[in-house]
Amino acid sequence: MKINGRHTRTIWLNADGWSLTVIDQTKLPHRFATLTLDSMTAAAQAIKTMTVRGAPLIGATAAYGLCLALREDASDEALERAYHVLIETRPTAINLKWALDEMMAGLRNIPRTERVAAAYARAGQICDQDVEICRRIGENGLALIRAVAAKKPGQRVNVLTHCNAGWLACIDWGTALAPIYMAHDAGIPVHVFVDETRPRNQGASLTAYELGAHGVPHTILADNAGGHFMQAGQVDLCIVGTDRVTANGDVANKIGTYLKALAAKDNGVPFYVALPHTTIDWTMPKGVGVIPIEERSAAEVLTMSGRLADGSVAVVEIAAPGSPAANPGFDVTPARLVTAFITERGVAPATAEGLLSLYPERR
Amino acid sequence: MKINGRHTRTIWLNADGWSLTVIDQTKLPHRFATLTLDSMTAAAQAIKTMTVRGAPLIGATAAYGLCLALREDASDEALERAYHVLIETRPTAINLKWALDEMMAGLRNIPRTERVAAAYARAGQICDQDVEICRRIGENGLALIRAVAAKKPGQRVNVLTHCNAGWLACIDWGTALAPIYMAHDAGIPVHVFVDETRPRNQGASLTAYELGAHGVPHTILADNAGGHFMQAGQVDLCIVGTDRVTANGDVANKIGTYLKALAAKDNGVPFYVALPHTTIDWTMPKGVGVIPIEERSAAEVLTMSGRLADGSVAVVEIAAPGSPAANPGFDVTPARLVTAFITERGVAPATAEGLLSLYPERR
Repeated sequence: MKINGRHTRTIWLNADGWSLTVIDQTKLPHRFATLTLDSMTAAAQAIKTMTVRGAPLIGATAAYGLCLALREDASDEALERAYHVLIETRPTAINLKWALDEMMAGLRNIPRTERVAAAYARAGQICDQDVEICRRIGENGLALIRAVAAKKPGQRVNVLTHCNAGWLACIDWGTALAPIYMAHDAGIPVHVFVDETRPRNQGASLTAYELGAHGVPHTILADNAGGHFMQAGQVDLCIVGTDRVTANGDVANKIGTYLKALAAKDNGVPFYVALPHTTIDWTMPKGVGVIPIEERSAAEVLTMSGRLADGSVAVVEIAAPGSPAANPGFDVTPARLVTAFITERGVAPATAEGLLSLYPERR
Repeated sequence: MKINGRHTRTIWLNADGWSLTVIDQTKLPHRFATLTLDSMTAAAQAIKTMTVRGAPLIGATAAYGLCLALREDASDEALERAYHVLIETRPTAINLKWALDEMMAGLRNIPRTERVAAAYARAGQICDQDVEICRRIGENGLALIRAVAAKKPGQRVNVLTHCNAGWLACIDWGTALAPIYMAHDAGIPVHVFVDETRPRNQGASLTAYELGAHGVPHTILADNAGGHFMQAGQVDLCIVGTDRVTANGDVANKIGTYLKALAAKDNGVPFYVALPHTTIDWTMPKGVGVIPIEERSAAEVLTMSGRLADGSVAVVEIAAPGSPAANPGFDVTPARLVTAFITERGVAPATAEGLLSLYPERR
């Protein structure tokens, strides 16, 4: 997508042919800044600190993290060591494991001397494939938005989304936002209700930023407000991304997704989850109570970062000193609340059978 | 309740016998400050700016606002004028109308010379009655908490609450928090999950402050997290307050309440609404789509107030400049999602019949 009119991805290989640049997402929306990753440790740190975030981008960054590790030491031991450091950076997004396993499968049985080149080639492919996958998710989701638009000609189509599953979460296009960008570009009057997504505010800081940069009309909401707008008939459909879908169709996504899915169900609003096949965990039969949920720092709940009147960025504490807080990063939405999945292969019900109908090779 | 060991109400008559002092709730939790109300305009302003908030306290402040107006001009015209200014300060809480109507009923047909004294007497009664009502709500809710505690001896009883329906929202005790204070004082190991309650953070800034001051164990959550904790079996019951209950049992309360009620229903967690009879709008047959919902400033969503590292209080902007936001202040929880009401008369199902069983004089 474009930043100031210039086509940009979220991660790219530098002119030196080996180091990477990523957008530092912790600085948005206040400042567009980039960060160079020149070691496996730097890549792991970027994932941990959420300089990069979003399931597909986490996977891509980890893949390049392996490349950077191999540049320093291409031995089997170093490869295994790097795998274990990288896979422990974040627990919930399954794309991380998928990308690392893909890399390992291609690297384990080739000579050390060829490993670095092979690793960079495969990481580059993972990125290019993700872009193509997101483009197809966009096309498949566009058909759903087009169908809603056809039923209310001349009126805006209102989509609610939670967190950020846009191009900043991927390499380009995004998952949940790809259909929205395509609808907007196709002239459909689409408008997005953006949950601010406390505690880290990915909606207000990343999704609103993305949509604004592309000119898509949007309105930021407190996370509390989505149910009210659905009850008032002001939301036509919800589209969210996901960090892991289990074989039965349960969906792990940013904390709060479950509450919006409940409200959608209660008000007959279709609730779609957009994902690449790399987000499906075929090894896990169900998600509720099983998918590991990252417990993040209480400080994220007790503070808020933003711009002061002079334009500088500051962190403020919002509760009384010493107040305790808990901060689960994700929740699991039961498959029964999901209308359908939108993947690069098409749209299917959120059931084991629905997933297998899109990926029959998994039967 | 106590502030620094000293018994305090949220509003009190000063030694001069006519002006009022209120706790300035916009300064909490960073600073305990009070504000003098010495005119009807000051009282109206305190309600509008949420210096005072919470349905019962709004009613009490408006009652004293009428007293202050009459002190300056005890004519029928001045009385009507003050009524109309005060009733338009906030649209959702019905206690405002109840308190003003109570005052008017007692003042219209008495001589001007007696009006000021009669007004202060009635406003004082409204406050004292509210304290007694909240105490009884506490006792009736305590029985429910005691029953949960009896089923899990030695383990903590986990209550989730949204926004602030504690003593800061009332004159003393609170509605939703009164049973919690009584349970704590009775030695029941009660623990409270406190929704931060964006956009104004009444949970993190007021409820956590209140509970902390009284020594009640609590944990602040992002508004997104309650569904996850209910799904994980970590919430025994929810108790919230309300700004208006319609004759069929629909509940207007702080934006986001509806989402928690949905999660409670989905997970079999009892969802109680605590209220004084003054919050029941017997004239409104149902609430969903009918109760007027206050649309507040977008700035509340786009900013956050808190303490900087040097202890000073600052406001930060969290979204990109120019991002639009919407800010409905309340939502309506359909009666079908409410397990029961807790009032000063007892506990009853959230139905028209349930309400009438507690208030048979309304049949």
